[in-house]
Amino acid sequence: MSATVHVFGGAGFAGAQLAALVDAHPHFRLGAITARSDEGTRLVDIYPQYRVAAALQSPDPALAARGDFAAVCYPHAAASELVATLVDNGVRVVDVSADHRLHDPALYPEWYGFDHSRHDLLAEAVYGLPEAHRERIRGARLVANPGCYPTAAVIALLPLAGRLSDVVIDAKSGVSGAGKTPTDAVHFSSVTENVTPYKVLSHRHEPEIAQELGVDVTFTPHLVAADRGEMASCYARLTDPPASQDDLLDLYRAHYDGHPFVEIVERPPGLRGVQHTNYVQVCPLLDARRGRVIAFGVIDNIVKGAAGQALQNLNLMAGRPETEGLL
Amino acid sequence: MSATVHVFGGAGFAGAQLAALVDAHPHFRLGAITARSDEGTRLVDIYPQYRVAAALQSPDPALAARGDFAAVCYPHAAASELVATLVDNGVRVVDVSADHRLHDPALYPEWYGFDHSRHDLLAEAVYGLPEAHRERIRGARLVANPGCYPTAAVIALLPLAGRLSDVVIDAKSGVSGAGKTPTDAVHFSSVTENVTPYKVLSHRHEPEIAQELGVDVTFTPHLVAADRGEMASCYARLTDPPASQDDLLDLYRAHYDGHPFVEIVERPPGLRGVQHTNYVQVCPLLDARRGRVIAFGVIDNIVKGAAGQALQNLNLMAGRPETEGLL
Amino acid sequence: MSATVHVFGGAGFAGAQLAALVDAHPHFRLGAITARSDEGTRLVDIYPQYRVAAALQSPDPALAARGDFAAVCYPHAAASELVATLVDNGVRVVDVSADHRLHDPALYPEWYGFDHSRHDLLAEAVYGLPEAHRERIRGARLVANPGCYPTAAVIALLPLAGRLSDVVIDAKSGVSGAGKTPTDAVHFSSVTENVTPYKVLSHRHEPEIAQELGVDVTFTPHLVAADRGEMASCYARLTDPPASQDDLLDLYRAHYDGHPFVEIVERPPGLRGVQHTNYVQVCPLLDARRGRVIAFGVIDNIVKGAAGQALQNLNLMAGRPETEGLL
Amino acid sequence: MSATVHVFGGAGFAGAQLAALVDAHPHFRLGAITARSDEGTRLVDIYPQYRVAAALQSPDPALAARGDFAAVCYPHAAASELVATLVDNGVRVVDVSADHRLHDPALYPEWYGFDHSRHDLLAEAVYGLPEAHRERIRGARLVANPGCYPTAAVIALLPLAGRLSDVVIDAKSGVSGAGKTPTDAVHFSSVTENVTPYKVLSHRHEPEIAQELGVDVTFTPHLVAADRGEMASCYARLTDPPASQDDLLDLYRAHYDGHPFVEIVERPPGLRGVQHTNYVQVCPLLDARRGRVIAFGVIDNIVKGAAGQALQNLNLMAGRPETEGLL
Repeated sequence: MSATVHVFGGAGFAGAQLAALVDAHPHFRLGAITARSDEGTRLVDIYPQYRVAAALQSPDPALAARGDFAAVCYPHAAASELVATLVDNGVRVVDVSADHRLHDPALYPEWYGFDHSRHDLLAEAVYGLPEAHRERIRGARLVANPGCYPTAAVIALLPLAGRLSDVVIDAKSGVSGAGKTPTDAVHFSSVTENVTPYKVLSHRHEPEIAQELGVDVTFTPHLVAADRGEMASCYARLTDPPASQDDLLDLYRAHYDGHPFVEIVERPPGLRGVQHTNYVQVCPLLDARRGRVIAFGVIDNIVKGAAGQALQNLNLMAGRPETEGLL
Repeated sequence: MSATVHVFGGAGFAGAQLAALVDAHPHFRLGAITARSDEGTRLVDIYPQYRVAAALQSPDPALAARGDFAAVCYPHAAASELVATLVDNGVRVVDVSADHRLHDPALYPEWYGFDHSRHDLLAEAVYGLPEAHRERIRGARLVANPGCYPTAAVIALLPLAGRLSDVVIDAKSGVSGAGKTPTDAVHFSSVTENVTPYKVLSHRHEPEIAQELGVDVTFTPHLVAADRGEMASCYARLTDPPASQDDLLDLYRAHYDGHPFVEIVERPPGLRGVQHTNYVQVCPLLDARRGRVIAFGVIDNIVKGAAGQALQNLNLMAGRPETEGLL
Repeated sequence: MSATVHVFGGAGFAGAQLAALVDAHPHFRLGAITARSDEGTRLVDIYPQYRVAAALQSPDPALAARGDFAAVCYPHAAASELVATLVDNGVRVVDVSADHRLHDPALYPEWYGFDHSRHDLLAEAVYGLPEAHRERIRGARLVANPGCYPTAAVIALLPLAGRLSDVVIDAKSGVSGAGKTPTDAVHFSSVTENVTPYKVLSHRHEPEIAQELGVDVTFTPHLVAADRGEMASCYARLTDPPASQDDLLDLYRAHYDGHPFVEIVERPPGLRGVQHTNYVQVCPLLDARRGRVIAFGVIDNIVKGAAGQALQNLNLMAGRPETEGLL
Repeated sequence: MSATVHVFGGAGFAGAQLAALVDAHPHFRLGAITARSDEGTRLVDIYPQYRVAAALQSPDPALAARGDFAAVCYPHAAASELVATLVDNGVRVVDVSADHRLHDPALYPEWYGFDHSRHDLLAEAVYGLPEAHRERIRGARLVANPGCYPTAAVIALLPLAGRLSDVVIDAKSGVSGAGKTPTDAVHFSSVTENVTPYKVLSHRHEPEIAQELGVDVTFTPHLVAADRGEMASCYARLTDPPASQDDLLDLYRAHYDGHPFVEIVERPPGLRGVQHTNYVQVCPLLDARRGRVIAFGVIDNIVKGAAGQALQNLNLMAGRPETEGLL
C-alpha cells in the first residue's frame, strides 16, 4: 500500500526536484505540492524537464494533519512552525530547511538570527545523513535533511572523524545552490566565466559541518559557473595518519561498505560523474610527507544535497529499499 | 577643449559601459552618471571591471540644461520626455533607448504601447547607424541609437537593400542583451546549456530592421548561453543576384569602404572576434543555385550594439575621429 | 528471454550512451562494446556518469556473426562494410552512422565522398525515424538511424510535408554533436561565450532532411556553448496554410497522436526540457499575415538524436514497448 | 627610438596575446612571431580577436642574434637552449617558459624531469614578478616570467612572508591555462558544468610558490568552466597576526603602495574584475579567532599570469613606464 508524501514549498529547486522524484516513485504517492505563489500552475509549466502534471496549491493548514509523510522545503526560520505542527499531528517529517539541523539551540540566534522555540524537537530530530545515522533515521518522527555543503564535506571526512585537526574546507558550488529567486548574484552575466567566494567565515553550514565531524573547521564556499554540482576540497592534519595511500583507501572503503550511494574513487572526481544522481564520490589522498589528507567530495547539490537525500530518508523511514526511486 | 557628456541611466549594462568609455576618452569629459537607485555608490563597486570611480547620482532635473552632450540609457517609453527637454534646452542627445528610432509615429502605439507626443523629434531624429547615416549624424541635435539586433542585421544586409525579398533573420543573443534586472529568464540556471527562442513574431526590433532595410522581415531572436555578443543569421532571396561569391564579396567591400568598424570576412564569424570591441564582422555567402544570400553579422551587443555605437555617434557629432576612444 | 545487443564503436559519445542504455534495459543484454583503442578499459573509467563496468574490446570479426542485434556507431564510410557483413550473417542492425540513410546511391559520392557498394542495402534500409516509419522498422533487418539535425528538423516539419516551400532551417547544436575527438573547434576556449556557424551550404544532413521532407531545404548549423541539445528553427511558406494557430496545433497534435516521445508545446521550447531524454518538443507557430510557419524542434542530440533513437528502434525491432528503457 | 621584440612560440595562447600586446605598444616594435607549424598564416586568422596581421614564421636560428628583446613562449624543457643562445648573443630575454624560474638546479630533474645544463643562467635569472623584484628586473639580461598560479598566490601572500605556516592554496583556473593543444581534458563537453582537481600534490608550480614565499605550501589546482582567469584561495596560520582586519588591510596597502597593477579590495573578488587586464586583485581576511588569514588573489592567467606580465617586465627592462601598453 502506498504512502502519501506532501511537499511543502514545491516551487523552489529542491522542492520541485523532490516532487518529481516522489511522483515517479514506485511506492510513494505525491500528495499536495504547495507554494506561496503560482497556485494553479502545473509544475511542468515551471520546470519542463520534470514532466509533473500536478498543479501547485496554496499551503492549506488542513494539509498539516493529513498524509503519511511531509517534506518541508521552506527557507530557514520559516519552516519550524509548520514542522512542529506536522510532527504534533503525527505526520512524519523530513525538514529540508535548516531549522532542525543543529542540536544546540544557542546556535540558532548566533547563526540564523532567531530563537528556536522547540528545543524538544531540536533534541529529537535526527540529522538526516544516512551515511552517519541510518538506523536512527528509520524510526524518526523528524529528520533534519542536511545542507548541501555539509553532505559533501562530512561524507568526505567522516571516516577520519576523531583524528582530524586544522581542517580547511574549500567548497565550490553550482548556482542552483543559491536557489530559484533571481538576484544580481545569480544573473547569468554575473556568473558565467567567473568564480566568486562568498560568505567567507560566515556561512551557516560551518557549524553544521563542525557538529557532525566534531571538530572546528574553516569553511569557504565559492560560486562557480555551473548549474548543478558541488565539490568540497578538504584539507586536514591527521593524528596517527595511515601508513600509505592504500591504507587510506581501505579505511574509506571499509567505512562506507554497505552504503549504496558512496563511491570511493582513486582519482579526484569532477562534478560530471554525480550530476542528476544521488551518488557522492569521495577521493581521499594521503600527503604522507606532511601528515595531511586531502579529501574531495562531490555531489549534485539538488539531489544528494537536498531532494534526493530527502527521498533516501523517506525510503528509510517508510521501510523501503534505501535506493528506491533514486539514480 | 573637452566636451562634457552626461550619462542618464548609467547603472544598466549599456549606460555603465558608456560611462566607462566616456571616462577613458581623450576628448570627452564624463559629467553626471544618473540612476534611479544606488545613488552615492561608485560605479566601480557595481562593475569592478570598469574602474570608474565616479558615483551614481539621482537624475537632477537641472542636469538637463547643462553639458554639451547627453546619452539617455532609459527603458523605452521612459526616455522620450527627458530627451525632449534636453533637446529643447540645446543639449545634443544620443538616445540609447528605442524612443526615437522609428520614423512613423503610428508604430509606437502598435509596437511599444504608447503614443509618442513629439512627432517633430521623431521626424528630426537621425537613426544612429553611422554605416548608413554618417553625414547626417555629424550635424544632428538628436541621434536615435539603434537597437542591438538591428545593428547586426542591417549592417549584414544593407549592401543588398533594394534587391531583397523573403528575408528571414534568425538571431542569437547573449544574456546581457536582456539587461541587468534579475529575472527568471536570466537566472544562470535557466540560461546555461540552453538556447531559447523568445518574442517570436513580436520582437520590437522587427519594425526597426524593416525601416532601415526597406523590406518586410521575419525576425526571430534566441537567447544563448553567453554574456556578450549577438549574431544575425540572415537569409534572403535576391533579385539580380551577383554572379559569384567573389562578386558578392566585392560588392560588400566596396559598400563598406571607409567604414572603420566593419570587417568583411570570408568565413562565417563567431562572437569571439568582436566581443569587447566596436567592430561588426559580416560574412555574405552566395547560394547561387537558389538565388539566395546567407549573410552573418556579429557584434558585441553592449559595445557596437549600444554604448560603443553611442560613442561612435558622439565622436561624429563632436567632430572627433570616428574611432576615438573605441577598440 | 533477453536478446543480446553488441555496440560497435562504443567509445564515442553516441556509442557509450547507447551501451549505457542497453546495459540498464530490462530486456536487452549488453554484448560486446568495441573500440579502436583503449581495449581493456572499463567504460566507467572514460565516462564516469554511465557507471557501465564492462570493458572495451577490439572489434573481433567473429562478433559479426553472433548476437541478436548490433548497433554500429562508426564514422561515415567506415560502417558500411561491417554493416553488410552483419546483415549478411543474419544479425539485425541499427546503423547509427550515415552509411545507409540516403536512398539514392548517387548522393554518397556527392555528399560523403565515397561510392557505396551495396545499393541493395541502401534500398532495403529503413530510415529509423519511428515517427515516420514505425511499422517498417518493426520488421527491418537494417535500420538507418537518422542524423541528429534531421531528427529535430524533420519531426518539426513533417506534419506539413507536401505543402512546404522556401524552407530555411537554422539549427543550433551543443558541442557533443561534434564528437569526442579533441580538435581546436571543440576546445572549451573556442566554444564558451561563442556561437559559430559551420559547414554553411555544405552540411551532410541537408540531403537527408530533403529526402524525408520531400522538399529542398536551406540548412545552416551553428555550434553553441552547450554540451547536449539541438534546436532546429524552421521557417517555411505553406501552400494552403491553416486558418489559425489553433488549427495548426490541432494538425500537429493529430499527426503525432500515439507517438510517445513527441510533445507539442505552445511556447517555443528550450533545450532544457529534453536534455538527457528521448523526447522531442515541437512548437509550430503560424505567421498568418505572411502565410508562413515557424516551427521549433528540440532534442538531446545524443539521446533522441542518436543513442536513444537507436534504442527506440531496437525496441520496435524486438517487439518490445517503444519506450522501454528510455526516459 | 623603438626597440624590437621577437616572440618565439607565438601560436600558443600566451605567445599570441604577447604578440598582440607588443604589436599595439607605443614603444616596442613587433619583430618575428615564430611557430612550429602554420608558418605563413596570419595571426589574425588563428586569433581573430587580436587583429595582428603579421604572419607566423618558422624559428630561424638567425633570429636568435638579432632584436633587442626576445620573449620565449615555449613549453618547459624546450626553451632553455634557445634562451641560452639568445642571452649569449646579447639579446635580452623574458623566458615565459618555466625553464629559469627555480634557482635550485636540483629541482629541475625532480619536478621537470630534465637536467638543467646552464646553472649560471639559473643563478643569474631574475624571477620576473615586478611586485617582488622590480629593481633587479630593470637591469636583467634574463627574466624568468612567473607561472600563472604563482603570480596569483605569491602576490596574495607576499606581505605576510616570514610569518606564514600551514599554508594551503586551493586554486581555480580557467581552461586557457591548460594551453591551446586540444585534449580530452579541454574538450568543451568535459569542462562545461564541471570542476575538476588535477595534479594534486604534484603540480610544478608548487616549488615556485614555495621558493618565492619561503615556506612549504600545499597547492591544489582545479579546472573550472571559464576561459580566462585564475583564483588562488590561500589559507595560512600567522605568527604574530595583525590585531584587526583594518591592520591587515593597512599592511597590504602599504606593502603594495606604488605597484600599479595590485588592487587591494575589501570584498572577495571574482575573476570578472581582472579578465583581459594586467591587474591582480587581492583580498586578505583575518580570521582572528583562529589566528589565520584567508587571502584571495585573482588574475587573468594569460595577461598578468603570462603575456601581460612579460610586457610589464619588458617595460621595466627597456626603461619604459611599467604600465605602458597594458590595461
